[in-house]
Amino acid sequence: MQHIEQYQKPFLKYLERFTVEREPKNLYSPINYILELGGKRLRPILTLMTAEVFDEHAEKAMDAALSIEVFHNFSLVHDDIMDDAPLRRGQQTVHEKWNLNTGILSGDAMLILAYQLFENYDAETFRDLAKLFSKTALEVCEGQQYDIDFETRDDVTIPEYLKMIEYKTAVLVGAAMKMGAIVAKASEADQNSIYEFGRFLGIAFQLQDDYLDAFGNPETFGKQVGGDIIENKKTYLYLKTIELGSNDDVLNLKTFMSNLELPNSNKVEKVKALFHKTGAAEATQNAVKDYTNKAFEVLETLHISDDKKQSLRLFGEQLMNRRV
Amino acid sequence: MQHIEQYQKPFLKYLERFTVEREPKNLYSPINYILELGGKRLRPILTLMTAEVFDEHAEKAMDAALSIEVFHNFSLVHDDIMDDAPLRRGQQTVHEKWNLNTGILSGDAMLILAYQLFENYDAETFRDLAKLFSKTALEVCEGQQYDIDFETRDDVTIPEYLKMIEYKTAVLVGAAMKMGAIVAKASEADQNSIYEFGRFLGIAFQLQDDYLDAFGNPETFGKQVGGDIIENKKTYLYLKTIELGSNDDVLNLKTFMSNLELPNSNKVEKVKALFHKTGAAEATQNAVKDYTNKAFEVLETLHISDDKKQSLRLFGEQLMNRRV
Repeated sequence: MQHIEQYQKPFLKYLERFTVEREPKNLYSPINYILELGGKRLRPILTLMTAEVFDEHAEKAMDAALSIEVFHNFSLVHDDIMDDAPLRRGQQTVHEKWNLNTGILSGDAMLILAYQLFENYDAETFRDLAKLFSKTALEVCEGQQYDIDFETRDDVTIPEYLKMIEYKTAVLVGAAMKMGAIVAKASEADQNSIYEFGRFLGIAFQLQDDYLDAFGNPETFGKQVGGDIIENKKTYLYLKTIELGSNDDVLNLKTFMSNLELPNSNKVEKVKALFHKTGAAEATQNAVKDYTNKAFEVLETLHISDDKKQSLRLFGEQLMNRRV
Repeated sequence: MQHIEQYQKPFLKYLERFTVEREPKNLYSPINYILELGGKRLRPILTLMTAEVFDEHAEKAMDAALSIEVFHNFSLVHDDIMDDAPLRRGQQTVHEKWNLNTGILSGDAMLILAYQLFENYDAETFRDLAKLFSKTALEVCEGQQYDIDFETRDDVTIPEYLKMIEYKTAVLVGAAMKMGAIVAKASEADQNSIYEFGRFLGIAFQLQDDYLDAFGNPETFGKQVGGDIIENKKTYLYLKTIELGSNDDVLNLKTFMSNLELPNSNKVEKVKALFHKTGAAEATQNAVKDYTNKAFEVLETLHISDDKKQSLRLFGEQLMNRRV
């Protein structure tokens, strides 16, 4: 098992070969555009890394890794339409650069291309990969629908929120790793364990994202700090404040959130103070730790060398220790 | 092999079991809605019928048939968004009844569900079905993109037009039949022949649709007769008029099409007269016959009984002899 960076280069090379000129241009150019827009490529790298954990060449998992990346970008293209987002990674989103119809149709084609990438594997592996892919992709759609539903609901519970982020984000991390295990023909028990490892880590990662959106370092976080507060998002911090806060705290929170006259910077400061005062900030950090620990506990059940367990643990720690 | 109507009932029963209540409701209700909106269910019936042609119980092909129907309805949901269509089969389209985001996301989920329907088959059959499905689905996307591109081009050639309708419509008919053959484990040669039969018949069917849109019986055609003319669509009739007409004919055609002052009924009559005068109407009818004959020629190569060939031929004739 190598370092993250060592998988990046061969993966990007493989990706480059995938984004060739195809006809009709108006269908395939947007696909190449979004795939070449960058990003950390964390998910496909997890697939390659996991294949090696189970003693298979990373090379062999390249198509599965690419499938995960193509699917992830499909979901970005369609989500950006739904969120009416003008920018993605600092560049125009597909529906902005082209138009709505191009965004829809190119996205559809990407979802199909993601399935096609399994076709070079033997029939059993193909079926295992495609089944996992379908289950995961459907959960991602369900997570996106829950996320949309939550916008207009004011009785969202914490278990509901956790299920939403699990579906929308974490299952794809689990699936990315399990695909590496499937390609490596790991035992079913190990396939399921590595999936759980990824899933728990994915939940921890998303909860940390909620935390950093409020308390991260503006210079390194990448997104606007306080963005969730400005957009009145029902994050873990928000829901925990409602759970833990006094009646006054909850009233204040809702007043700040609905007060259109309050300048954003003021609003962000006031809401952040409440997140601290109620213990919601600390509870969120604890939840991050809890899910990270659940991931690490699953590691112990894997039938791999202690060295490899240690590497996976280190990877998890690196991922969770970002103090951005 | 039975009559079309005899496949309809068991298929609709199977479809009914598929459209159950699932969560989140806002994702799955639109899927149930579009699937229950009706339609002739021709494509899935072709799958069932073909399985029987190759000596397999239609029952066994039910999941593959349903996959074809779910995919077809996925493409309707997304196409209706792209065409900004308010109605589908006389009822509100999904994005009209709900909203744009629901149309996109429910459509995405349907595309995934279509793949999941192959999961009950053995690994080899699963891979064969999914590969054919991906190839076909991608071609349908490409066909839709060509169709969009043609709207703003005035140099569309007849071969380009034929490729567009082949991709957008005919390959799915071929694939529906080939899936029946795959489930029945027919020989590769027979699988390919039945695909070609369906593909040729699909092209003939679409060309006839172009013809009937102008010259069909308003009382039975189902769509507004003359609709393509009113919308200035570059159909086979239109392109043939440009190919066969004199300079004056072509000038007149383009004048009628671009004259916004001309009442629709007037415009339709004038353009239809040109379709006749130039020989474009006759050429279209000949093209329908040619492609139907190509389909029937392929039939001869199939390794099935003469009885079955005769049945498939009869089915093709019924399909093409609609004088609606």
